[in-house]
Amino acid sequence: MPHYIIGIDGGGTSCRAALAGADGRILGRGKSGAANILTDPDTALVHIIGAAKAAFEDAGLDPECFTTTDALVGVAGSNVGEAVHYVKERLPFARADIESDGLIALQGALGDLDGAVAILGTGSIYISRIGGDVSYIGGWGFKVGDLGSGGRLGHALLQESLLAYDGIHPTSPLTDEVMAEFNNDPRDIVEFARLAHPGEFGRYAPKVFAHAERHDPVAVALLKASTQTIDEALDVVVSRGSRRICLLGGLAPFYRPWLADRHQPLFAESEADALTGSVALATKRFVTDAEVLS
Amino acid sequence: MPHYIIGIDGGGTSCRAALAGADGRILGRGKSGAANILTDPDTALVHIIGAAKAAFEDAGLDPECFTTTDALVGVAGSNVGEAVHYVKERLPFARADIESDGLIALQGALGDLDGAVAILGTGSIYISRIGGDVSYIGGWGFKVGDLGSGGRLGHALLQESLLAYDGIHPTSPLTDEVMAEFNNDPRDIVEFARLAHPGEFGRYAPKVFAHAERHDPVAVALLKASTQTIDEALDVVVSRGSRRICLLGGLAPFYRPWLADRHQPLFAESEADALTGSVALATKRFVTDAEVLS
Repeated sequence: MPHYIIGIDGGGTSCRAALAGADGRILGRGKSGAANILTDPDTALVHIIGAAKAAFEDAGLDPECFTTTDALVGVAGSNVGEAVHYVKERLPFARADIESDGLIALQGALGDLDGAVAILGTGSIYISRIGGDVSYIGGWGFKVGDLGSGGRLGHALLQESLLAYDGIHPTSPLTDEVMAEFNNDPRDIVEFARLAHPGEFGRYAPKVFAHAERHDPVAVALLKASTQTIDEALDVVVSRGSRRICLLGGLAPFYRPWLADRHQPLFAESEADALTGSVALATKRFVTDAEVLS
Repeated sequence: MPHYIIGIDGGGTSCRAALAGADGRILGRGKSGAANILTDPDTALVHIIGAAKAAFEDAGLDPECFTTTDALVGVAGSNVGEAVHYVKERLPFARADIESDGLIALQGALGDLDGAVAILGTGSIYISRIGGDVSYIGGWGFKVGDLGSGGRLGHALLQESLLAYDGIHPTSPLTDEVMAEFNNDPRDIVEFARLAHPGEFGRYAPKVFAHAERHDPVAVALLKASTQTIDEALDVVVSRGSRRICLLGGLAPFYRPWLADRHQPLFAESEADALTGSVALATKRFVTDAEVLS
Protein backbone atom coordinates (compact mmCIF):
# COMPACT_ATOMS: atom_id res chain seq x y z
CA MET A 1 0.00 0.00 0.00
CA PRO A 2 1.31 3.49 -0.78
CA HIS A 3 2.36 5.73 2.12
CA TYR A 4 -0.45 8.19 2.82
CA ILE A 5 -0.28 11.12 5.20
CA ILE A 6 -3.02 13.18 6.79
CA GLY A 7 -2.95 16.83 7.76
CA ILE A 8 -5.54 18.04 10.28
CA ASP A 9 -6.63 21.59 11.02
CA GLY A 10 -8.75 21.35 14.16
CA GLY A 11 -10.61 24.43 15.30
CA GLY A 12 -13.26 25.54 17.73
CA THR A 13 -16.05 25.35 15.16
CA SER A 14 -14.92 22.66 12.71
CA CYS A 15 -12.16 20.18 11.96
CA ARG A 16 -10.73 19.80 8.46
CA ALA A 17 -8.51 17.03 7.11
CA ALA A 18 -6.49 16.60 3.92
CA LEU A 19 -5.15 13.26 2.68
CA ALA A 20 -1.96 13.32 0.63
CA GLY A 21 0.49 10.96 -0.96
CA ALA A 22 4.14 10.76 0.02
CA ASP A 23 4.83 13.52 -2.50
CA GLY A 24 2.54 15.88 -0.55
CA ARG A 25 -0.04 16.07 -3.35
CA ILE A 26 -3.53 16.33 -1.84
CA LEU A 27 -5.82 13.43 -2.84
CA GLY A 28 -8.93 14.20 -0.80
CA ARG A 29 -10.44 16.47 1.82
CA GLY A 30 -12.87 15.97 4.70
CA LYS A 31 -14.62 18.05 7.33
CA SER A 32 -16.35 17.43 10.65
CA GLY A 33 -17.33 19.25 13.83
CA ALA A 34 -15.41 21.16 16.50
CA ALA A 35 -12.05 19.84 17.74
CA ASN A 36 -11.24 21.69 20.94
CA ILE A 37 -8.84 19.43 22.83
CA LEU A 38 -8.98 21.59 25.96
CA THR A 39 -12.71 21.87 26.55
CA ASP A 40 -13.82 18.53 25.11
CA PRO A 41 -11.00 16.14 24.16
CA ASP A 42 -13.25 13.11 23.51
CA THR A 43 -15.41 14.97 21.01
CA ALA A 44 -12.24 16.39 19.47
CA LEU A 45 -10.99 12.81 18.94
CA VAL A 46 -14.27 11.76 17.30
CA HIS A 47 -14.15 14.74 14.93
CA ILE A 48 -10.46 14.34 14.06
CA ILE A 49 -11.10 10.71 13.06
CA GLY A 50 -14.33 11.69 11.28
CA ALA A 51 -12.58 14.33 9.17
CA ALA A 52 -9.78 11.87 8.31
CA LYS A 53 -12.23 9.16 7.19
CA ALA A 54 -14.12 11.71 5.09
CA ALA A 55 -10.87 12.66 3.35
CA PHE A 56 -10.25 9.00 2.46
CA GLU A 57 -13.78 8.71 1.08
CA ASP A 58 -13.29 11.94 -0.87
CA ALA A 59 -10.18 10.36 -2.42
CA GLY A 60 -12.11 7.19 -3.31
CA LEU A 61 -10.18 5.11 -0.80
CA ASP A 62 -11.24 2.80 2.05
CA PRO A 63 -11.89 5.07 5.07
CA GLU A 64 -10.57 2.41 7.46
CA CYS A 65 -7.08 2.91 5.98
CA PHE A 66 -6.63 5.81 8.38
CA THR A 67 -5.21 3.38 10.96
CA THR A 68 -2.16 2.75 8.77
CA THR A 69 -1.68 6.43 7.94
CA ASP A 70 0.56 9.04 9.60
CA ALA A 71 -1.11 12.25 10.76
CA LEU A 72 -0.14 15.70 11.88
CA VAL A 73 -2.86 17.32 13.98
CA GLY A 74 -2.86 21.09 14.36
CA VAL A 75 -5.09 22.28 17.20
CA ALA A 76 -5.57 25.17 19.60
CA GLY A 77 -4.49 24.47 23.17
CA SER A 78 -1.50 22.39 22.11
CA ASN A 79 0.61 24.22 24.72
CA VAL A 80 -1.32 22.54 27.52
CA GLY A 81 0.59 19.37 28.27
CA GLU A 82 -2.14 17.22 29.78
CA ALA A 83 -4.70 17.69 27.04
CA VAL A 84 -2.11 16.95 24.35
CA HIS A 85 -0.99 13.79 26.15
CA TYR A 86 -4.57 12.57 26.57
CA VAL A 87 -5.48 13.11 22.92
CA LYS A 88 -2.16 12.00 21.44
CA GLU A 89 -2.19 8.56 23.08
CA ARG A 90 -5.75 7.98 21.82
CA LEU A 91 -5.19 9.02 18.20
CA PRO A 92 -5.66 5.80 16.14
CA PHE A 93 -3.27 6.71 13.32
CA ALA A 94 -0.05 4.74 12.58
CA ARG A 95 2.01 7.67 13.83
CA ALA A 96 0.66 11.04 14.98
CA ASP A 97 1.97 14.35 16.23
CA ILE A 98 0.08 17.29 17.70
CA GLU A 99 1.17 20.83 16.94
CA SER A 100 -0.35 24.24 17.59
CA ASP A 101 -2.91 25.65 15.20
CA GLY A 102 -0.55 28.63 14.95
CA LEU A 103 2.35 26.54 13.69
CA ILE A 104 0.36 24.92 10.88
CA ALA A 105 -0.96 28.37 9.96
CA LEU A 106 2.63 29.64 9.82
CA GLN A 107 3.72 26.69 7.66
CA GLY A 108 0.81 27.35 5.31
CA ALA A 109 1.40 31.09 5.13
CA LEU A 110 5.20 31.10 4.77
CA GLY A 111 5.92 27.69 3.28
CA ASP A 112 9.59 27.11 4.04
CA LEU A 113 10.57 30.81 4.08
CA ASP A 114 11.79 32.56 7.23
CA GLY A 115 9.32 35.01 8.71
CA ALA A 116 6.41 35.34 11.06
CA VAL A 117 2.64 35.31 11.33
CA ALA A 118 0.51 37.66 13.41
CA ILE A 119 -2.81 35.96 14.10
CA LEU A 120 -5.44 38.61 14.90
CA GLY A 121 -8.80 37.01 15.61
CA THR A 122 -10.82 36.58 18.78
CA GLY A 123 -7.39 36.10 20.39
CA SER A 124 -3.96 37.27 19.27
CA ILE A 125 -0.58 35.57 18.96
CA TYR A 126 2.67 36.07 17.04
CA ILE A 127 4.84 33.21 15.84
CA SER A 128 8.21 33.67 14.18
CA ARG A 129 10.37 31.02 12.51
CA ILE A 130 13.93 31.87 11.58
CA GLY A 131 16.19 29.09 10.31
CA GLY A 132 13.88 26.49 11.82
CA ASP A 133 13.78 28.17 15.25
CA VAL A 134 10.17 28.78 16.19
CA SER A 135 9.27 31.32 18.88
CA TYR A 136 5.88 32.35 20.24
CA ILE A 137 5.09 35.88 21.41
CA GLY A 138 1.92 36.81 23.29
CA GLY A 139 -1.20 34.67 23.04
CA TRP A 140 -1.76 34.22 26.77
CA GLY A 141 -5.51 34.37 26.43
CA PHE A 142 -8.23 36.96 26.96
CA LYS A 143 -7.83 37.31 30.71
CA VAL A 144 -4.22 38.55 30.98
CA GLY A 145 -3.10 38.68 27.36
CA ASP A 146 -4.28 38.66 23.74
CA LEU A 147 -3.80 42.42 23.49
CA GLY A 148 -5.09 43.79 20.20
CA SER A 149 -7.42 40.81 19.77
CA GLY A 150 -11.08 41.14 18.88
CA GLY A 151 -12.01 39.98 22.38
CA ARG A 152 -9.93 42.67 24.04
CA LEU A 153 -11.01 45.39 21.60
CA GLY A 154 -14.70 44.60 22.11
CA HIS A 155 -14.17 44.51 25.87
CA ALA A 156 -12.42 47.90 25.74
CA LEU A 157 -15.42 49.32 23.87
CA LEU A 158 -17.88 48.19 26.55
CA GLN A 159 -15.66 49.55 29.33
CA GLU A 160 -15.29 52.86 27.48
CA SER A 161 -19.07 53.07 27.01
CA LEU A 162 -19.52 52.80 30.80
CA LEU A 163 -16.89 55.52 31.35
CA ALA A 164 -18.79 57.72 28.88
CA TYR A 165 -22.09 56.91 30.62
CA ASP A 166 -20.59 58.12 33.92
CA GLY A 167 -19.26 61.31 32.32
CA ILE A 168 -15.67 60.27 33.07
CA HIS A 169 -14.79 60.11 29.36
CA PRO A 170 -16.56 61.81 26.41
CA THR A 171 -19.51 60.19 24.68
CA SER A 172 -19.56 59.68 20.89
CA PRO A 173 -21.90 58.18 18.30
CA LEU A 174 -20.14 54.85 18.98
CA THR A 175 -20.67 54.87 22.76
CA ASP A 176 -24.26 56.09 22.22
CA GLU A 177 -24.86 53.13 19.90
CA VAL A 178 -23.46 50.67 22.43
CA MET A 179 -25.51 52.10 25.31
CA ALA A 180 -28.65 52.03 23.16
CA GLU A 181 -28.00 48.36 22.41
CA PHE A 182 -27.96 47.76 26.17
CA ASN A 183 -31.17 49.78 26.74
CA ASN A 184 -29.11 52.69 28.06
CA ASP A 185 -28.75 50.71 31.27
CA PRO A 186 -25.17 50.16 32.46
CA ARG A 187 -26.34 47.19 34.52
CA ASP A 188 -27.22 45.41 31.27
CA ILE A 189 -23.58 45.74 30.17
CA VAL A 190 -22.37 44.48 33.54
CA GLU A 191 -24.72 41.50 33.31
CA PHE A 192 -23.60 40.72 29.74
CA ALA A 193 -19.92 41.02 30.67
CA ARG A 194 -20.32 38.79 33.71
CA LEU A 195 -20.80 35.68 31.58
CA ALA A 196 -19.48 36.73 28.14
CA HIS A 197 -16.80 34.61 26.46
CA PRO A 198 -13.98 36.30 24.52
CA GLY A 199 -15.83 35.62 21.26
CA GLU A 200 -18.90 37.43 22.57
CA PHE A 201 -16.82 40.49 23.48
CA GLY A 202 -15.20 40.14 20.06
CA ARG A 203 -18.52 40.65 18.32
CA TYR A 204 -18.22 44.34 19.30
CA ALA A 205 -14.81 44.78 17.63
CA PRO A 206 -16.12 45.38 14.07
CA LYS A 207 -18.17 48.31 15.43
CA VAL A 208 -14.91 50.01 16.47
CA PHE A 209 -13.43 49.70 12.96
CA ALA A 210 -16.65 50.85 11.30
CA HIS A 211 -16.90 53.97 13.47
CA ALA A 212 -13.18 54.72 13.20
CA GLU A 213 -13.66 54.92 9.42
CA ARG A 214 -16.18 57.67 10.10
CA HIS A 215 -13.67 59.43 12.42
CA ASP A 216 -15.61 58.73 15.62
CA PRO A 217 -13.12 60.04 18.23
CA VAL A 218 -13.73 57.23 20.75
CA ALA A 219 -13.40 54.57 18.03
CA VAL A 220 -10.17 56.13 16.77
CA ALA A 221 -8.72 56.34 20.31
CA LEU A 222 -9.63 52.71 21.11
CA LEU A 223 -8.23 51.53 17.78
CA LYS A 224 -4.99 53.48 18.17
CA ALA A 225 -4.44 52.01 21.65
CA SER A 226 -5.20 48.52 20.37
CA THR A 227 -3.03 48.95 17.27
CA GLN A 228 -0.12 50.16 19.39
CA THR A 229 -0.09 46.85 21.27
CA ILE A 230 0.14 45.03 17.93
CA ASP A 231 2.91 47.30 16.62
CA GLU A 232 4.87 46.74 19.84
CA ALA A 233 4.59 42.98 19.43
CA LEU A 234 5.58 43.24 15.77
CA ASP A 235 8.70 45.16 16.86
CA VAL A 236 9.72 42.06 18.83
CA VAL A 237 8.98 39.83 15.84
CA VAL A 238 11.20 42.07 13.68
CA SER A 239 13.96 42.19 16.31
CA ARG A 240 14.09 38.39 16.16
CA GLY A 241 14.89 38.58 12.47
CA SER A 242 11.58 38.39 10.60
CA ARG A 243 11.50 40.42 7.41
CA ARG A 244 8.32 38.80 6.13
CA ILE A 245 5.11 38.93 8.16
CA CYS A 246 1.75 37.44 7.21
CA LEU A 247 -1.27 38.90 9.00
CA LEU A 248 -3.82 36.14 9.62
CA GLY A 249 -7.17 35.89 11.43
CA GLY A 250 -10.50 37.58 10.92
CA LEU A 251 -9.35 41.05 12.00
CA ALA A 252 -6.15 41.09 9.91
CA PRO A 253 -7.61 42.99 6.92
CA PHE A 254 -9.23 45.53 9.27
CA TYR A 255 -6.08 46.19 11.26
CA ARG A 256 -3.62 46.28 8.36
CA PRO A 257 -4.11 49.94 7.28
CA TRP A 258 -3.91 51.07 10.92
CA LEU A 259 -0.56 49.45 11.67
CA ALA A 260 2.64 51.51 11.80
CA ASP A 261 4.32 52.67 8.59
CA ARG A 262 7.54 50.95 9.68
CA HIS A 263 5.82 47.55 9.41
CA GLN A 264 3.90 48.04 6.17
CA PRO A 265 6.75 46.97 3.83
CA LEU A 266 7.10 43.67 5.73
CA PHE A 267 3.55 42.46 5.19
CA ALA A 268 3.24 39.61 2.70
CA GLU A 269 0.33 37.57 1.38
CA SER A 270 -0.06 34.01 2.63
CA GLU A 271 1.07 31.23 0.31
CA ALA A 272 -1.57 28.80 1.54
CA ASP A 273 -3.93 28.02 4.39
CA ALA A 274 -3.40 26.18 7.67
CA LEU A 275 -4.70 22.85 6.33
CA THR A 276 -2.10 22.95 3.55
CA GLY A 277 0.44 23.81 6.25
CA SER A 278 -0.47 20.75 8.28
CA VAL A 279 -0.05 18.50 5.22
CA ALA A 280 3.36 20.08 4.56
CA LEU A 281 4.43 19.52 8.18
CA ALA A 282 3.15 15.93 8.02
CA THR A 283 5.21 15.34 4.90
CA LYS A 284 8.34 16.77 6.51
CA ARG A 285 7.87 14.66 9.58
CA PHE A 286 6.70 11.31 8.27
CA VAL A 287 8.00 10.94 4.73
CA THR A 288 11.62 9.84 4.32
CA ASP A 289 13.92 11.36 1.73
CA ALA A 290 14.06 7.95 0.08
CA GLU A 291 10.30 7.94 -0.39
CA VAL A 292 10.34 11.45 -1.85
CA LEU A 293 13.06 10.49 -4.33
CA SER A 294 11.38 7.23 -5.32
CA MET B 1 -40.84 49.97 75.52
CA PRO B 2 -38.46 52.65 74.20
CA HIS B 3 -37.97 52.98 70.45
CA TYR B 4 -34.75 51.24 69.49
CA ILE B 5 -33.09 51.32 66.09
CA ILE B 6 -30.46 49.09 64.56
CA GLY B 7 -27.78 49.99 62.03
CA ILE B 8 -26.19 47.15 60.08
CA ASP B 9 -22.94 47.17 58.11
CA GLY B 10 -22.95 43.92 56.15
CA GLY B 11 -19.79 42.96 54.31
CA GLY B 12 -18.22 40.06 52.47
CA THR B 13 -16.27 38.89 55.50
CA SER B 14 -18.37 39.99 58.48
CA CYS B 15 -21.57 41.72 59.50
CA ARG B 16 -21.63 44.35 62.24
CA ALA B 17 -24.64 45.81 64.03
CA ALA B 18 -25.11 48.75 66.38
CA LEU B 19 -28.18 49.24 68.57
CA ALA B 20 -29.17 52.80 69.41
CA GLY B 21 -31.90 54.69 71.18
CA ALA B 22 -34.18 57.16 69.42
CA ASP B 23 -31.57 59.85 70.10
CA GLY B 24 -29.03 57.91 68.00
CA ARG B 25 -26.79 57.14 70.99
CA ILE B 26 -25.23 53.69 70.56
CA LEU B 27 -26.15 51.27 73.33
CA GLY B 28 -24.53 48.06 72.13
CA ARG B 29 -22.64 46.44 69.29
CA GLY B 30 -22.64 42.98 67.74
CA LYS B 31 -20.78 41.07 65.05
CA SER B 32 -21.33 37.92 63.02
CA GLY B 33 -20.23 36.30 59.75
CA ALA B 34 -20.38 37.35 56.10
CA ALA B 35 -23.50 39.06 54.73
CA ASN B 36 -23.28 38.92 50.96
CA ILE B 37 -26.85 39.24 49.71
CA LEU B 38 -25.87 38.44 46.13
CA THR B 39 -23.93 35.21 46.52
CA ASP B 40 -25.71 33.80 49.59
CA PRO B 41 -28.82 35.71 50.70
CA ASP B 42 -29.98 33.10 53.24
CA THR B 43 -26.68 33.12 55.11
CA ALA B 44 -26.69 36.90 54.90
CA LEU B 45 -30.11 36.92 56.63
CA VAL B 46 -28.85 34.62 59.39
CA HIS B 47 -25.82 36.83 60.01
CA ILE B 48 -27.77 40.11 59.91
CA ILE B 49 -30.12 38.76 62.59
CA GLY B 50 -27.19 37.27 64.54
CA ALA B 51 -25.36 40.59 64.64
CA ALA B 52 -28.54 42.42 65.71
CA LYS B 53 -29.19 39.97 68.56
CA ALA B 54 -25.57 40.27 69.71
CA ALA B 55 -25.96 44.06 69.84
CA PHE B 56 -29.02 43.67 72.10
CA GLU B 57 -27.07 41.30 74.38
CA ASP B 58 -24.14 43.73 74.43
CA ALA B 59 -26.58 46.44 75.60
CA GLY B 60 -27.92 44.15 78.35
CA LEU B 61 -31.31 43.85 76.62
CA ASP B 62 -33.43 40.88 75.55
CA PRO B 63 -32.10 39.74 72.12
CA GLU B 64 -35.62 38.81 70.98
CA CYS B 65 -36.55 42.50 71.05
CA PHE B 66 -35.08 42.80 67.56
CA THR B 67 -38.49 41.92 66.10
CA THR B 68 -39.95 45.19 67.39
CA THR B 69 -36.96 47.28 66.29
CA ASP B 70 -36.43 49.27 63.07
CA ALA B 71 -33.28 48.51 61.11
CA LEU B 72 -31.27 50.01 58.30
CA VAL B 73 -29.15 47.41 56.53
CA GLY B 74 -26.17 48.56 54.49
CA VAL B 75 -24.86 45.86 52.18
CA ALA B 76 -22.93 45.40 48.96
CA GLY B 77 -25.03 44.39 45.96
CA SER B 78 -27.94 46.61 46.98
CA ASN B 79 -28.25 47.79 43.36
CA VAL B 80 -29.41 44.34 42.29
CA GLY B 81 -33.16 44.45 42.59
CA GLU B 82 -33.96 40.76 43.01
CA ALA B 83 -31.51 40.09 45.83
CA VAL B 84 -32.69 43.16 47.73
CA HIS B 85 -36.33 42.16 47.35
CA TYR B 86 -35.65 38.60 48.53
CA VAL B 87 -33.72 39.73 51.61
CA LYS B 88 -35.92 42.71 52.48
CA GLU B 89 -39.15 40.74 52.65
CA ARG B 90 -37.49 38.18 54.97
CA LEU B 91 -35.91 40.65 57.40
CA PRO B 92 -37.74 40.07 60.73
CA PHE B 93 -37.42 43.62 62.04
CA ALA B 94 -40.43 45.89 62.69
CA ARG B 95 -39.43 48.05 59.71
CA ALA B 96 -36.34 47.62 57.60
CA ASP B 97 -34.63 49.29 54.66
CA ILE B 98 -31.69 48.10 52.60
CA GLU B 99 -29.13 50.60 51.34
CA SER B 100 -25.76 50.25 49.65
CA ASP B 101 -22.64 49.75 51.73
CA GLY B 102 -21.35 52.85 49.93
CA LEU B 103 -24.18 55.06 51.15
CA ILE B 104 -23.73 54.14 54.81
CA ALA B 105 -19.97 54.69 54.39
CA LEU B 106 -20.72 58.14 52.94
CA GLN B 107 -23.08 58.96 55.82
CA GLY B 108 -20.42 57.89 58.30
CA ALA B 109 -17.62 59.77 56.57
CA LEU B 110 -19.43 63.05 55.84
CA GLY B 111 -22.16 63.10 58.46
CA ASP B 112 -24.72 65.56 57.08
CA LEU B 113 -22.20 67.64 55.10
CA ASP B 114 -22.27 67.84 51.30
CA GLY B 115 -19.42 66.02 49.59
CA ALA B 116 -18.32 62.68 48.26
CA VAL B 117 -16.51 59.47 49.08
CA ALA B 118 -14.09 57.62 46.82
CA ILE B 119 -13.97 54.00 47.92
CA LEU B 120 -10.69 52.44 46.77
CA GLY B 121 -10.47 48.82 47.82
CA THR B 122 -10.67 45.56 45.87
CA GLY B 123 -13.24 47.47 43.79
CA SER B 124 -13.73 51.19 43.28
CA ILE B 125 -16.75 53.48 43.37
CA TYR B 126 -17.47 57.18 43.89
CA ILE B 127 -20.58 58.49 45.62
CA SER B 128 -21.46 62.15 45.90
CA ARG B 129 -24.25 63.73 47.90
CA ILE B 130 -25.12 67.37 47.35
CA GLY B 131 -28.17 68.82 49.09
CA GLY B 132 -29.54 65.32 49.60
CA ASP B 133 -29.07 64.29 45.97
CA VAL B 134 -27.00 61.10 45.87
CA SER B 135 -25.22 60.05 42.68
CA TYR B 136 -23.03 57.03 42.00
CA ILE B 137 -20.07 57.10 39.60
CA GLY B 138 -18.21 54.00 38.47
CA GLY B 139 -18.32 50.82 40.50
CA TRP B 140 -19.39 48.50 37.71
CA GLY B 141 -17.25 45.62 38.96
CA PHE B 142 -13.91 44.11 38.05
CA LYS B 143 -14.86 42.85 34.62
CA VAL B 144 -15.76 46.11 32.83
CA GLY B 145 -15.22 48.70 35.53
CA ASP B 146 -13.66 49.40 38.94
CA LEU B 147 -10.75 51.23 37.31
CA GLY B 148 -8.09 52.16 39.81
CA SER B 149 -9.21 49.40 42.18
CA GLY B 150 -6.84 46.92 43.77
CA GLY B 151 -8.26 44.16 41.60
CA ARG B 152 -7.60 46.07 38.39
CA LEU B 153 -4.15 47.27 39.53
CA GLY B 154 -3.06 43.74 40.46
CA HIS B 155 -4.44 42.44 37.16
CA ALA B 156 -2.52 45.13 35.25
CA LEU B 157 0.68 44.05 37.01
CA LEU B 158 0.27 40.41 35.94
CA GLN B 159 -0.50 41.44 32.35
CA GLU B 160 2.52 43.76 32.31
CA SER B 161 4.75 40.97 33.64
CA LEU B 162 3.71 38.79 30.68
CA LEU B 163 4.44 41.65 28.26
CA ALA B 164 7.87 42.01 29.87
CA TYR B 165 8.43 38.23 29.66
CA ASP B 166 7.75 38.39 25.91
CA GLY B 167 10.11 41.34 25.44
CA ILE B 168 7.23 43.56 24.30
CA HIS B 169 7.67 45.90 27.28
CA PRO B 170 10.76 46.41 29.49
CA THR B 171 11.40 44.22 32.50
CA SER B 172 12.04 45.71 35.96
CA PRO B 173 12.72 44.44 39.47
CA LEU B 174 8.93 44.39 39.94
CA THR B 175 8.19 42.24 36.88
CA ASP B 176 11.14 39.99 37.75
CA GLU B 177 9.69 39.50 41.24
CA VAL B 178 6.27 38.61 39.82
CA MET B 179 7.69 36.15 37.28
CA ALA B 180 9.83 34.54 40.01
CA GLU B 181 6.70 34.10 42.14
CA PHE B 182 5.17 32.21 39.20
CA ASN B 183 8.27 30.05 38.67
CA ASN B 184 9.25 32.17 35.67
CA ASP B 185 6.57 30.29 33.75
CA PRO B 186 3.98 32.49 32.02
CA ARG B 187 1.60 29.53 31.95
CA ASP B 188 1.46 29.66 35.76
CA ILE B 189 0.20 33.25 35.54
CA VAL B 190 -2.38 32.25 32.92
CA GLU B 191 -3.56 29.39 35.13
CA PHE B 192 -3.78 31.65 38.20
CA ALA B 193 -5.66 34.34 36.27
CA ARG B 194 -8.11 31.83 34.82
CA LEU B 195 -9.81 31.29 38.18
CA ALA B 196 -8.70 34.29 40.25
CA HIS B 197 -11.32 36.49 41.91
CA PRO B 198 -10.86 40.27 42.00
CA GLY B 199 -9.58 40.01 45.57
CA GLU B 200 -6.88 37.56 44.48
CA PHE B 201 -5.71 39.94 41.75
CA GLY B 202 -5.89 42.69 44.36
CA ARG B 203 -3.30 40.95 46.50
CA TYR B 204 -0.70 42.06 43.92
CA ALA B 205 -1.63 45.75 44.20
CA PRO B 206 0.49 46.54 47.30
CA LYS B 207 3.55 45.28 45.38
CA VAL B 208 3.00 48.07 42.84
CA PHE B 209 2.95 50.76 45.54
CA ALA B 210 5.98 49.31 47.31
CA HIS B 211 8.07 49.21 44.11
CA ALA B 212 6.85 52.64 42.97
CA GLU B 213 8.28 54.05 46.23
CA ARG B 214 11.63 52.65 45.09
CA HIS B 215 11.16 54.27 41.65
CA ASP B 216 10.71 50.99 39.77
CA PRO B 217 9.79 52.32 36.30
CA VAL B 218 7.13 49.67 35.60
CA ALA B 219 5.53 50.21 39.01
CA VAL B 220 5.52 53.98 38.49
CA ALA B 221 3.96 53.63 35.01
CA LEU B 222 1.25 51.24 36.24
CA LEU B 223 0.48 53.45 39.20
CA LYS B 224 0.32 56.62 37.09
CA ALA B 225 -2.11 54.96 34.66
CA SER B 226 -4.23 53.69 37.55
CA THR B 227 -4.12 57.02 39.38
CA GLN B 228 -5.21 58.85 36.24
CA THR B 229 -8.43 56.85 36.14
CA ILE B 230 -9.12 57.90 39.74
CA ASP B 231 -8.33 61.57 39.06
CA GLU B 232 -10.65 61.51 36.05
CA ALA B 233 -13.49 60.13 38.18
CA LEU B 234 -12.75 62.70 40.90
CA ASP B 235 -13.08 65.43 38.25
CA VAL B 236 -16.67 64.27 37.70
CA VAL B 237 -17.28 64.23 41.45
CA VAL B 238 -16.00 67.82 41.67
CA SER B 239 -18.02 68.92 38.63
CA ARG B 240 -21.16 67.74 40.45
CA GLY B 241 -20.40 70.14 43.27
CA SER B 242 -18.34 68.21 45.84
CA ARG B 243 -15.75 70.31 47.67
CA ARG B 244 -15.13 67.71 50.35
CA ILE B 245 -13.95 64.22 49.45
CA CYS B 246 -13.19 61.37 51.83
CA LEU B 247 -10.96 58.61 50.49
CA LEU B 248 -12.08 55.27 51.90
CA GLY B 249 -11.08 51.64 51.41
CA GLY B 250 -7.87 49.75 51.99
CA LEU B 251 -5.91 51.43 49.18
CA ALA B 252 -6.94 55.02 50.05
CA PRO B 253 -3.83 55.86 52.13
CA PHE B 254 -1.59 54.36 49.43
CA TYR B 255 -3.19 56.27 46.56
CA ARG B 256 -3.58 59.64 48.33
CA PRO B 257 -0.04 61.03 47.71
CA TRP B 258 -0.20 59.95 44.04
CA LEU B 259 -3.45 61.76 43.23
CA ALA B 260 -3.42 65.05 41.30
CA ASP B 261 -2.45 68.29 43.03
CA ARG B 262 -5.79 69.81 42.02
CA HIS B 263 -7.61 67.31 44.25
CA GLN B 264 -5.36 67.38 47.31
CA PRO B 265 -7.03 70.40 49.00
CA LEU B 266 -10.42 68.63 48.79
CA PHE B 267 -9.45 65.55 50.77
CA ALA B 268 -10.94 65.42 54.26
CA GLU B 269 -10.77 62.91 57.10
CA SER B 270 -13.81 60.75 57.77
CA GLU B 271 -16.01 61.75 60.69
CA ALA B 272 -16.99 58.17 61.49
CA ASP B 273 -17.21 54.66 60.05
CA ALA B 274 -19.91 52.96 57.97
CA LEU B 275 -21.59 51.33 60.98
CA THR B 276 -22.04 54.75 62.59
CA GLY B 277 -23.37 55.91 59.21
CA SER B 278 -25.99 53.17 59.13
CA VAL B 279 -27.19 54.10 62.65
CA ALA B 280 -27.42 57.75 61.54
CA LEU B 281 -29.43 56.78 58.45
CA ALA B 282 -31.67 54.53 60.56
CA THR B 283 -32.35 57.43 62.93
CA LYS B 284 -33.21 59.77 60.04
CA ARG B 285 -35.53 57.23 58.52
CA PHE B 286 -37.32 55.69 61.48
CA VAL B 287 -37.30 58.25 64.30
CA THR B 288 -39.90 61.02 64.13
CA ASP B 289 -39.12 64.62 64.98
CA ALA B 290 -41.51 64.32 67.92
CA GLU B 291 -39.48 61.43 69.34
CA VAL B 292 -36.23 63.35 68.96
CA LEU B 293 -37.70 66.38 70.74
CA SER B 294 -39.27 64.38 73.56
